[in-house]
Amino acid sequence: MTDGQDVADWWRTRIIDMEPGRIHLRGRPVQELIGTTGFAEMIWLMVMGEEIAGDRARLFEAALVAAVDHGPQAPSIAAARMAATCGVGLQAAMATGLNMLGDVHGGAGEQAVALYRAVERAGPEGLAAALDAWRAEHGPFLPGFGHRYHKPVDPRAPRLLALVDAAAEQGAVPGAYAEIGRAIERHLAAERGKPVPMNIDGATAVIYAELGCPPPLARGFFGLSRSVGLLAHAWEQMEQGGRNKGPTPPGYRWTYDGD
Amino acid sequence: MTDGQDVADWWRTRIIDMEPGRIHLRGRPVQELIGTTGFAEMIWLMVMGEEIAGDRARLFEAALVAAVDHGPQAPSIAAARMAATCGVGLQAAMATGLNMLGDVHGGAGEQAVALYRAVERAGPEGLAAALDAWRAEHGPFLPGFGHRYHKPVDPRAPRLLALVDAAAEQGAVPGAYAEIGRAIERHLAAERGKPVPMNIDGATAVIYAELGCPPPLARGFFGLSRSVGLLAHAWEQMEQGGRNKGPTPPGYRWTYDGD
Amino acid sequence: MTDGQDVADWWRTRIIDMEPGRIHLRGRPVQELIGTTGFAEMIWLMVMGEEIAGDRARLFEAALVAAVDHGPQAPSIAAARMAATCGVGLQAAMATGLNMLGDVHGGAGEQAVALYRAVERAGPEGLAAALDAWRAEHGPFLPGFGHRYHKPVDPRAPRLLALVDAAAEQGAVPGAYAEIGRAIERHLAAERGKPVPMNIDGATAVIYAELGCPPPLARGFFGLSRSVGLLAHAWEQMEQGGRNKGPTPPGYRWTYDGD
Amino acid sequence: MTDGQDVADWWRTRIIDMEPGRIHLRGRPVQELIGTTGFAEMIWLMVMGEEIAGDRARLFEAALVAAVDHGPQAPSIAAARMAATCGVGLQAAMATGLNMLGDVHGGAGEQAVALYRAVERAGPEGLAAALDAWRAEHGPFLPGFGHRYHKPVDPRAPRLLALVDAAAEQGAVPGAYAEIGRAIERHLAAERGKPVPMNIDGATAVIYAELGCPPPLARGFFGLSRSVGLLAHAWEQMEQGGRNKGPTPPGYRWTYDGD
Repeated sequence: MTDGQDVADWWRTRIIDMEPGRIHLRGRPVQELIGTTGFAEMIWLMVMGEEIAGDRARLFEAALVAAVDHGPQAPSIAAARMAATCGVGLQAAMATGLNMLGDVHGGAGEQAVALYRAVERAGPEGLAAALDAWRAEHGPFLPGFGHRYHKPVDPRAPRLLALVDAAAEQGAVPGAYAEIGRAIERHLAAERGKPVPMNIDGATAVIYAELGCPPPLARGFFGLSRSVGLLAHAWEQMEQGGRNKGPTPPGYRWTYDGD
Repeated sequence: MTDGQDVADWWRTRIIDMEPGRIHLRGRPVQELIGTTGFAEMIWLMVMGEEIAGDRARLFEAALVAAVDHGPQAPSIAAARMAATCGVGLQAAMATGLNMLGDVHGGAGEQAVALYRAVERAGPEGLAAALDAWRAEHGPFLPGFGHRYHKPVDPRAPRLLALVDAAAEQGAVPGAYAEIGRAIERHLAAERGKPVPMNIDGATAVIYAELGCPPPLARGFFGLSRSVGLLAHAWEQMEQGGRNKGPTPPGYRWTYDGD
Repeated sequence: MTDGQDVADWWRTRIIDMEPGRIHLRGRPVQELIGTTGFAEMIWLMVMGEEIAGDRARLFEAALVAAVDHGPQAPSIAAARMAATCGVGLQAAMATGLNMLGDVHGGAGEQAVALYRAVERAGPEGLAAALDAWRAEHGPFLPGFGHRYHKPVDPRAPRLLALVDAAAEQGAVPGAYAEIGRAIERHLAAERGKPVPMNIDGATAVIYAELGCPPPLARGFFGLSRSVGLLAHAWEQMEQGGRNKGPTPPGYRWTYDGD
Repeated sequence: MTDGQDVADWWRTRIIDMEPGRIHLRGRPVQELIGTTGFAEMIWLMVMGEEIAGDRARLFEAALVAAVDHGPQAPSIAAARMAATCGVGLQAAMATGLNMLGDVHGGAGEQAVALYRAVERAGPEGLAAALDAWRAEHGPFLPGFGHRYHKPVDPRAPRLLALVDAAAEQGAVPGAYAEIGRAIERHLAAERGKPVPMNIDGATAVIYAELGCPPPLARGFFGLSRSVGLLAHAWEQMEQGGRNKGPTPPGYRWTYDGD
């Protein structure tokens, strides 16, 4: 009935240790964390397994705050609102939207961190080659640059970058990735003859790279951030009411393009 | 093709207002919120539509921090870890666990807020009758009291209640719901001849009730909080590796209880 | 470390029994079922634990076929299509839509089975009282009757009912629930002075009630049926392409109705 | 407010055409399909846009029947059962499990179809080179061959292959992919000195390849098939009862492997 592996050993974790009446999270008694630790700091502690404080904590918090919402035209937000009219609980409406944050909708931050690291490995002289190599593998668009809606500039990006600059000046983060991001901006501007500035994903990716996050966590943290918007919109929709709310009013219809 | 309703009007929100280059969240430019607003404060602003600060903000943050994780024996956490071994993205692993926070797994906080309000409406003399009425409708167990694992006491609850007391002393919250929770504790202790103390759900429900949350948001906020643990565990599992990890080691099996 | 319960016993099932090289489903070797059993029959066997054949099987199959799709204006179908543009796998796009089939979007069939049974228990003389009682508990609308889009009649319902009549004539099903459904139709027509005919949910509920399904399985079977449309639409959308497809074209926007 | 794209045109489909009182699926009135079309045939029609009949339909049906369940040790099935104890609806329990059928858990069939096509393009002389190329890109294990539990052989595979052979003899399918699968089996047996036979994924992939499915639909159809087991197990668990059922009994615990 067993291959010799203990069932208790099937699940191993460094995150939590528990006995009746006792919960340690990342080695610290939960009651010492409650009331002394900010939510952003707690997120970092739980996921990264280390403490974050000072300017680094403020940068992380800024990235979480910046990405909470982009309105009901984002598929995830719209889906959470639709779900909220279908007779499911708030957690299901949130999960429905969160589940949509795939490679395209929520993955640009993760990809941008990976891009920045590839550019870093290529060194200052290797920027153009690194971007060419990226495009050969992933296609023409660089994740984190340009925005189909916010022209000329995504208002969240300059603010986030200013915070990175200030933190770098204090020595809290290296600042190297902000520079890489701007080098890519300059390259793209020269290439296309017009500005293609960092967007929210490019700017939060700078922060996550500065803080030392593995790329997939850029997507994970984005998921935590956007979940705030998912909850806000699902709840607003529940209070507005509506039943089985589709993408457009019932009178509108789609195009049948069969024969 | 239309029933006369404008498509633009099909989606209405007070949460976000946007034009190219401009994003306002709850009436405030996003770039003013980034770097000045904590993540917990931002959650409250987005979901409740109003600012939270001072002791009230600290209470809310404490509730968010307290509920992030209860280990891989919780179905939601285990499911997120399982999903992480099935070849899906972090967001899908998180959504899988979040989607499990239903009436039983994540709903106790919501139910406890509703219970406290029912007790409040009944007045000090009406406690026993209010509890009887609750049980007649919902069954014998009162949400938020007792714990099948943490005996004698869930270590998160006393800490959360101490923070409520301190905030009430400062006049930041009324303190009425902490008193209601303790009155229920006394009633249960007398009834059963042993302590049945508030658990994490009962204590966070005190906070949410003190802050004026509608009951369903106690569940929504719990979902945001627990998503932190879901991300931490899904990521840890991804780094541990494993493929198609079921509940027990492959050699173990279930019981067939057919004929 | 244990409360004395065997881990193997934690999961008990009558559905499947397995050893290396041997899989029995509902007591039958899987290799005997493959190639001899229709998919609809297999669904019934797995879920209900008994075989279905002949006219009963055809009725069940008809109910499954009838509900596969209602177009991209249904929130579930639209959400699956949106998800398909967000960089997630087909299974995630399907799960996203399936997860929306809650009490309102996918629950009418379940509710209609429950309604029919309530009317049955009330007996022929008790119809009006039974409907009054239902409305007092659940609100003014009777699940399974009327359609906001298909006027005068949902084309699926009469066809399904004709199949029930034919099966009842052969003695394959009692026919009692078809009669109950029609009695409710007559009552509603008299009450409102216009026809309020059974819709797809009302008609499939007749079938599920005739076949002896517990009400929640009417929702479960609807989920299996609608999953076909979810897969078809998600796949069609993937082939059409598109990135982060929201409910309306990017140029459209929602209404901000804050101050 | 618009970029000139008609909202109605934002959603285009060849799957369904609808007006009040009229539903056409793949160009056929729904009422003509109900009662005349099997569920498996309907699935093919909806997803592939063409009819399937005779031996081809029976093969497709066999693939759907074969993959419905692999017991509560599969993460998807266990997760659906866990979810069923958390106070969510059947559709959410099903979606929770379906959402886990990612690249690893549900993707082997899709990968095996792609592998067979790569081998086909390489031609009979190119088998070894094609397998080497596959492994160089995807790792050492070939999708669809061998089974960690069913030794010596997965009982579903030989039965499915026998059906393919019979259909090929009748000229209903080419039979080329069954031969490719067997050529891979021979190659693996010579390479490892022991049989590494096709498993359920390898055998259903033969069927999907013989029928002309694009690889991603092998995963989509697997999702429809496994959803049957998800529903059966979620429902069985609901009837068994249980609250917040984790992977192992409450007394068991996981291993903390921090410091």
